[in-house]
Amino acid sequence: MRHTLTVLVENTPGVLARVAGLFSRRGFNIDSLAVGRTDNPAVSRMTIVVEGDDQVLEQVNKQLHKLIDVIKINDITKDAYVDRELVMIKVYAEAATRSEIMQLVDIFRGRIVDVGRKTLTIEVTGDEGKIDAFENCLRPFGIKELVRTGKIAMLRGLKPGTKNNGYKEEDMV
Amino acid sequence: MRHTLTVLVENTPGVLARVAGLFSRRGFNIDSLAVGRTDNPAVSRMTIVVEGDDQVLEQVNKQLHKLIDVIKINDITKDAYVDRELVMIKVYAEAATRSEIMQLVDIFRGRIVDVGRKTLTIEVTGDEGKIDAFENCLRPFGIKELVRTGKIAMLRGLKPGTKNNGYKEEDMV
Repeated sequence: MRHTLTVLVENTPGVLARVAGLFSRRGFNIDSLAVGRTDNPAVSRMTIVVEGDDQVLEQVNKQLHKLIDVIKINDITKDAYVDRELVMIKVYAEAATRSEIMQLVDIFRGRIVDVGRKTLTIEVTGDEGKIDAFENCLRPFGIKELVRTGKIAMLRGLKPGTKNNGYKEEDMV
Repeated sequence: MRHTLTVLVENTPGVLARVAGLFSRRGFNIDSLAVGRTDNPAVSRMTIVVEGDDQVLEQVNKQLHKLIDVIKINDITKDAYVDRELVMIKVYAEAATRSEIMQLVDIFRGRIVDVGRKTLTIEVTGDEGKIDAFENCLRPFGIKELVRTGKIAMLRGLKPGTKNNGYKEEDMV
C-alpha cells in the first residue's frame, strides 16, 4: 500500500540522511520526498510517499520516533488531506504548435515561466493525477526536461469526533 | 556560498539515503531537497540546495559521481535558471479577515485549496523571495501550518557559446 507521511524534524545536519537511511535499511523505496522549512526556521517538514507493507511501515514509524531530531510523525494516508505537487516541464514548441500548447496550459491552469526559441517552460500544480494527465498531453510535442517537487500534504479541517491532528475541535469544519 | 544542484539518479531503493549520507558526512546541512520522478519513471531528479564551501562541495560532487545510481550532476548556481517552489499555508481566517486574506492571495496569484470554519488553506508558487514575502504578509493573521516543497530548478535556454547543459545550440534562445 502507498503511504503518505508528514514528518516534522529539527533542521540539523544529517537528519535527512538518518531518516532516509531508516527507510532504505528496511528496503522501502521512497517514491517521493519533499523537505523544506516551516514557519519556524529551526524546524523542517518532510512529506514522504512510500510503497510498503503496513506492518513493516508501523515499525519504521516507531524507529523514526526514536530519532532525536524527529519531532512528530503523522501517517495521513487514511485521513482527509489536501495534496499538491509542483512540476516544471520544458517542452518543444515550434511556431506551429505554440498556440496549441498555450491552450493546454490554460486548461490545466498552468503558467509559462520561460520561453526559448524552440521551447516553453511551464509550471503546473495539482495532485498526482492532474500532473500525470498534463504530462501525457504534452508528450506528443516532445518533452525535453521534466522536474517534479514530490508531493506535499496537509490535513483538511476535520469533522468533530475524528482524529484531529492535535487541533482544537472548534477550529475544524 | 549557497549552491543549487540538480542530480539525476536511478530510481532504486536507498539512493536517497546514499546521496544524503554523502552530504551529512561532510557536515553539509541540506537547506532543501525535492525529489520526484522525471518523464522516465526509472529516473528521478533531485534538486538540492546546500550552504557550503566551494572546494569541499567540489569534492562532494566528485564522490557523488562515483555512486553507481547517480547519472548526472549539475551545479547550476552560476548559470541562468528558473527556480520555483510550492508552499501550502493554513491560516486563521475569521469572517472579518477573510476578504483581506483573499485579496493577498489574489496579489500573489495564489489559490485557495481548502476552507475550514476558521481557516483557509492556500497554495502559492514562486521563487524563495516571493514565498517569504507571502508568508510575512499572512503572519499577522496567524499561521497554523506551513509546508514547502523545497525548490526545483531548470536551466533557461542559453546564449550560444555559454555552457549549454548538453543541449544543441539551435535549441537555445
